[in-house]
Amino acid sequence: MAQYSKVAPTPLLKDELDIVIPTIRNLDFLEMWRPFFQQYHLIIVQDGDPSKVIKVPEGFDYELYNRNDINRILGPKASCISFKDSACRCFGYMVSKKKYIFTIDDDCFVAKDPSGKDINALEQHIKNLLSPSTPFFFNTLYDPYREGADFVRGYPFSLREGIPTAVSHGLWLNIPDYDAPTQLVKPLERNTRFVDAVLTIPKGTLFPMCGMNLAFNRELIGPAMYFGLMGDGQPIGRYDDMWAGWCMKVICDHLGLGVKTGLPYIWHSKASNPFVNLKKEYKGIYWQEELIPFFQSATLPKDCTTVQGCYLELSKQVKAKLGKDDDYFIKLADAMVTWVEAWDELNPVGGKAVEANGVVAK
Amino acid sequence: MAQYSKVAPTPLLKDELDIVIPTIRNLDFLEMWRPFFQQYHLIIVQDGDPSKVIKVPEGFDYELYNRNDINRILGPKASCISFKDSACRCFGYMVSKKKYIFTIDDDCFVAKDPSGKDINALEQHIKNLLSPSTPFFFNTLYDPYREGADFVRGYPFSLREGIPTAVSHGLWLNIPDYDAPTQLVKPLERNTRFVDAVLTIPKGTLFPMCGMNLAFNRELIGPAMYFGLMGDGQPIGRYDDMWAGWCMKVICDHLGLGVKTGLPYIWHSKASNPFVNLKKEYKGIYWQEELIPFFQSATLPKDCTTVQGCYLELSKQVKAKLGKDDDYFIKLADAMVTWVEAWDELNPVGGKAVEANGVVAK
Repeated sequence: MAQYSKVAPTPLLKDELDIVIPTIRNLDFLEMWRPFFQQYHLIIVQDGDPSKVIKVPEGFDYELYNRNDINRILGPKASCISFKDSACRCFGYMVSKKKYIFTIDDDCFVAKDPSGKDINALEQHIKNLLSPSTPFFFNTLYDPYREGADFVRGYPFSLREGIPTAVSHGLWLNIPDYDAPTQLVKPLERNTRFVDAVLTIPKGTLFPMCGMNLAFNRELIGPAMYFGLMGDGQPIGRYDDMWAGWCMKVICDHLGLGVKTGLPYIWHSKASNPFVNLKKEYKGIYWQEELIPFFQSATLPKDCTTVQGCYLELSKQVKAKLGKDDDYFIKLADAMVTWVEAWDELNPVGGKAVEANGVVAK
Repeated sequence: MAQYSKVAPTPLLKDELDIVIPTIRNLDFLEMWRPFFQQYHLIIVQDGDPSKVIKVPEGFDYELYNRNDINRILGPKASCISFKDSACRCFGYMVSKKKYIFTIDDDCFVAKDPSGKDINALEQHIKNLLSPSTPFFFNTLYDPYREGADFVRGYPFSLREGIPTAVSHGLWLNIPDYDAPTQLVKPLERNTRFVDAVLTIPKGTLFPMCGMNLAFNRELIGPAMYFGLMGDGQPIGRYDDMWAGWCMKVICDHLGLGVKTGLPYIWHSKASNPFVNLKKEYKGIYWQEELIPFFQSATLPKDCTTVQGCYLELSKQVKAKLGKDDDYFIKLADAMVTWVEAWDELNPVGGKAVEANGVVAK
């Protein structure tokens, strides 16, 4: 037996998944992830000064894009990709040619489960994405497809097949993902609660999607995973993942795609500066009171059957309804259109554009 | 210090909560619950043969009702209370004079948390009921009011006060609450996963409410907690709690009341006979495919501002829409009306009938 144990098992979806990492620094954090990431391909999106050299530990297979690359590849459409904000990560989603994306921040490390074992976050995300979602009825024992669980009494049998899962949202031990006001009020709070659950976010329910530890099926939902206009030259930051999450959820609900949250946990090491965050967030904190009702009541017409079609329709509604509140949303709505155009350029229709039902369009 | 530790702490809500137990046998199971239940008042609803004497361990404060008592107290309205089915437990909700109810089955024992400590299920239910619910937006760190948790980034501040919690639905370790087909297919499956979470079921989402380990605020939602017509003389069993849960959830969503699920766990000791269960369930398994869409699309008019008003309106919709499928639902709709009439007789309006907003009606 011993001779076989030296052979590393082929990792799940090795040739079908890219790991996207936005960064402004050397990627030493990858050392800790080496056992889990080394056999996958990395797409590194370098934010900030493109002349800076980002060091990647040896042995990783990666491509790296800095701002000059983004400008060269997208031309004038590069305007839709944020600068000096981790929202730039969505460029990586666009240039990937794989079916699945896992994205992680460079201050996130391997967490341990309650037994002390290192958590293979990527493996759990893949399990989440490869098993169906159940957004139409809540299962009280959480994900019915996990080992040792099932649908409970009273769960309609017609709903037990579930629907395809588009997004897997993972959580964080140690530093919780709090907004600046909560950070200021509770500077010492740490998340120590390991909740051993994965669950489907029900249809019609919105949630705050965090981009720190996130995986998705690019073929099913990729064009909706736009992280908006944040950072340099924009009036707002730290709402990139939120924006993507709200748009994505409305579209998943419309197209019959599932979104899961819960496991896996990563170890979030470093609390960002709450004073800096407050400056980035304060308009968002105000705007989100308008945005949530907007997305809660947003409906898409039946003839929107592709992610791109849904996203363009949503951009129109953003312009018409939110544009009244602030010109920023007019600019953002235009950027949403640019994003989809750029996506389609880099991902031409021949075998790429995917219908809502997962069938490849001709 | 030692001398003080002998004084038992006053249990939470000691004079405001009744424990309702439906049973057909001696209540030896209470021995294990003694440290947690002994200071509370019990309402025991004896099912089946009223001449049988049910033994209750010494030292418990209780009242016991058998079928003769139910018939005597309710007269002709006793027809709404099921016989030879644990659905009879809802009679206990009706005769209680307390604000809160905890109901538990007599094959449920004290579970242990992962550290090996006995779980005080009642205390956790009370915590769930006394803290608000958040059904309008999902919080990814689950109950934001628990110690060590909060609302995450992107959660609208206007929603952080939450709304009153009406129901706390607890879970089960060991024997999971499966339907007969799943029991037959997985006879050996045991629930060993302790999920350390409490969460609000989002608005608009239905779930399978199990009556085994359940607590609720009687003043807020009591008249909706009717467990229907099951058992003796009825074509169906084991859908009592499901029925209550679907009616209750539609009404909570309408009135702005919250429903939580998750902790606490109890230890469910004994799997019921799947063959017997299949006989009870088979019509329900068929009917639930109609019932779920019915409740998912049920809407209540704005002028329904009391639980009773909502419930009577729902009974009309049951009769009109489900009555077409089977005469049983016509009988059930009539029983829903009888239930509310009986409730109001035993709980007269003077200081008892409560408006949707928690304000006592004059």
